[in-house]
Amino acid sequence: MDALARHVLLELNECNRERLSDSAFLRKNLLAAARAAGATIVSDTFHVFPPYDGVSGVVIVLESHLSIHTWPEHGYAAVDIFTCGTTVQPQKAVDLLVRELEPRDHSIVDMKRGIINPVAAHEGK
Amino acid sequence: MDALARHVLLELNECNRERLSDSAFLRKNLLAAARAAGATIVSDTFHVFPPYDGVSGVVIVLESHLSIHTWPEHGYAAVDIFTCGTTVQPQKAVDLLVRELEPRDHSIVDMKRGIINPVAAHEGK
Repeated sequence: MDALARHVLLELNECNRERLSDSAFLRKNLLAAARAAGATIVSDTFHVFPPYDGVSGVVIVLESHLSIHTWPEHGYAAVDIFTCGTTVQPQKAVDLLVRELEPRDHSIVDMKRGIINPVAAHEGK
Repeated sequence: MDALARHVLLELNECNRERLSDSAFLRKNLLAAARAAGATIVSDTFHVFPPYDGVSGVVIVLESHLSIHTWPEHGYAAVDIFTCGTTVQPQKAVDLLVRELEPRDHSIVDMKRGIINPVAAHEGK
């Protein structure tokens, strides 16, 4: 099965709670995670939401995007690493974020997106 | 199982190819999809990438985000609708995007994100 993209969904449980409401910290580390994975950064946007200062942030990369949403009140963060091409290594982004957010446990779902019919793709259909 | 968020992954195959490289069209419709679902728009960012004018776009909403990545050369688009709370209806966003992008077929994966331990959550752990 040939796929156009890879989508890593990362669940981070029981993190360092202070870090989950620190937008500057999260921005710095999601950008660092993109670079660590070998992605090329295009733009980013981060926002803080009351009442618990949860943060939503997205980094658009040439190879698609990375996103984070945090729930400081639950110690939880959801990260998505959506990439195309063969050069990006999502695991490097995962490693950096796990190190920096200090979850007690984490889990990964690694999905293929855009599974195409190779014959149709070849014929440009 | 209690979950903090819902994540709908939408695969759109054999779409109207012209629309997949039309950044203004995609932005208009991803914003419309967010509104149709009942989400509150915070910001958005869209970019076009050579050589096939594939588009990457993200709409940050109060309830998390919607994203789209398109491969016009394959007629394929990947959409993610990541939402928290009980008021957003992702299916309404799906319906709008399926109508506007005219895929020959599409599929949905509907996931829970942030499945928390209700006891730990209650105790604020």
